[in-house]
Amino acid sequence: MPTDAQNACFEAGIKFGSLYHQFAGTPVSPESADSLARAIEESIANQPYCEAVRVTIRRDELEAALEDATADYTELTGRFLDVEMDIEYEGTAVQTKMEMEDGYPLMKLVSVEE
Amino acid sequence: MPTDAQNACFEAGIKFGSLYHQFAGTPVSPESADSLARAIEESIANQPYCEAVRVTIRRDELEAALEDATADYTELTGRFLDVEMDIEYEGTAVQTKMEMEDGYPLMKLVSVEE
Amino acid sequence: MPTDAQNACFEAGIKFGSLYHQFAGTPVSPESADSLARAIEESIANQPYCEAVRVTIRRDELEAALEDATADYTELTGRFLDVEMDIEYEGTAVQTKMEMEDGYPLMKLVSVEE
Amino acid sequence: MPTDAQNACFEAGIKFGSLYHQFAGTPVSPESADSLARAIEESIANQPYCEAVRVTIRRDELEAALEDATADYTELTGRFLDVEMDIEYEGTAVQTKMEMEDGYPLMKLVSVEE
Repeated sequence: MPTDAQNACFEAGIKFGSLYHQFAGTPVSPESADSLARAIEESIANQPYCEAVRVTIRRDELEAALEDATADYTELTGRFLDVEMDIEYEGTAVQTKMEMEDGYPLMKLVSVEE
Repeated sequence: MPTDAQNACFEAGIKFGSLYHQFAGTPVSPESADSLARAIEESIANQPYCEAVRVTIRRDELEAALEDATADYTELTGRFLDVEMDIEYEGTAVQTKMEMEDGYPLMKLVSVEE
Repeated sequence: MPTDAQNACFEAGIKFGSLYHQFAGTPVSPESADSLARAIEESIANQPYCEAVRVTIRRDELEAALEDATADYTELTGRFLDVEMDIEYEGTAVQTKMEMEDGYPLMKLVSVEE
Repeated sequence: MPTDAQNACFEAGIKFGSLYHQFAGTPVSPESADSLARAIEESIANQPYCEAVRVTIRRDELEAALEDATADYTELTGRFLDVEMDIEYEGTAVQTKMEMEDGYPLMKLVSVEE
């Protein structure tokens, strides 16, 4: 049988996969970044065992991406996202975050406390 | 060659298909409905020729769907959405809306003014 | 530091959240169910540590859902999906599955072998 | 009242927005490109008034994108997609296509025949 800590980590992973694949591709600009970040936080926080979600959409990266572009918006992708999430499952607390590494959005367990 | 009015209607359709398939499936509850509605409006308004987007997520339908449920959230689908959009393309103004008909979210041209 | 088994479970969760939120909402009919199931399997199998993905789209449920409908397709949701996935991470093998419980698609760890 | 030709163009736009925002972000590699292309074609062809959908996922672009990457897959985006679609609505035939222009996936009406 999987342990509570293992289930807690599984649940944390579900939230990250959900967040990324629900919202990747959304049209986003520096002006609309804040409302999108709030909606991502509040929608994912609905999922079971999710204690907190903190999303920042990186304006500096957005502005850099749009500098030479013909349009004034782009598609949301990992490059523009900083995410931290706290999961709690049957007494186990899991902290996670997403950050870019080698051009990929890497999702990571930061700590697991039983 | 397609006319400006035809291109305006094509652009209107693109926005509707984008809106629906980007956001359908998002976890939503009565508490998180407003932030999601704002994010949908602001993200789709980034797209070219889009003058206005008005999204309402229907709390009454959400509450009805959750009444007998074991969870306190559900997935966003057409049943919970009212959408109106105004498109302007080279002088043609198009008004559109989405409403439920026979259990399907029906997207419609309301008016096309050249 | 998270253990290898905990990371394996986290990775398993990511795949499930990705699968569900990437493909939920896709138009599907009994005729197009097989090509969609294959594409889901092959796309998710690209993700790191994913050894196997088996997806069945349930024709019986699809046909039941369409029986009284005016259209001949519907949107993919958990009700129509059976999924099993095998993850392997640094020597830990994780088996997972998704099944409906109380009207929700429940994602579960089946076994974790270190 | 919108004309049949205008409604045909609106319907064509819906299919394009749906296709793009349903499938953008899907993990894709040269090996899984064909099954994804088939699933996109068959799922979008379910939508009303859609006569034909032809999707090519560009292996050359995929291979170029992966050449210097640490992973062997990437996320589906407009850069990798060629799409053509035929719509028929009340006697009006509409041909459309998507192609990259200035780094953006541009969706276009090719012809409208009443």
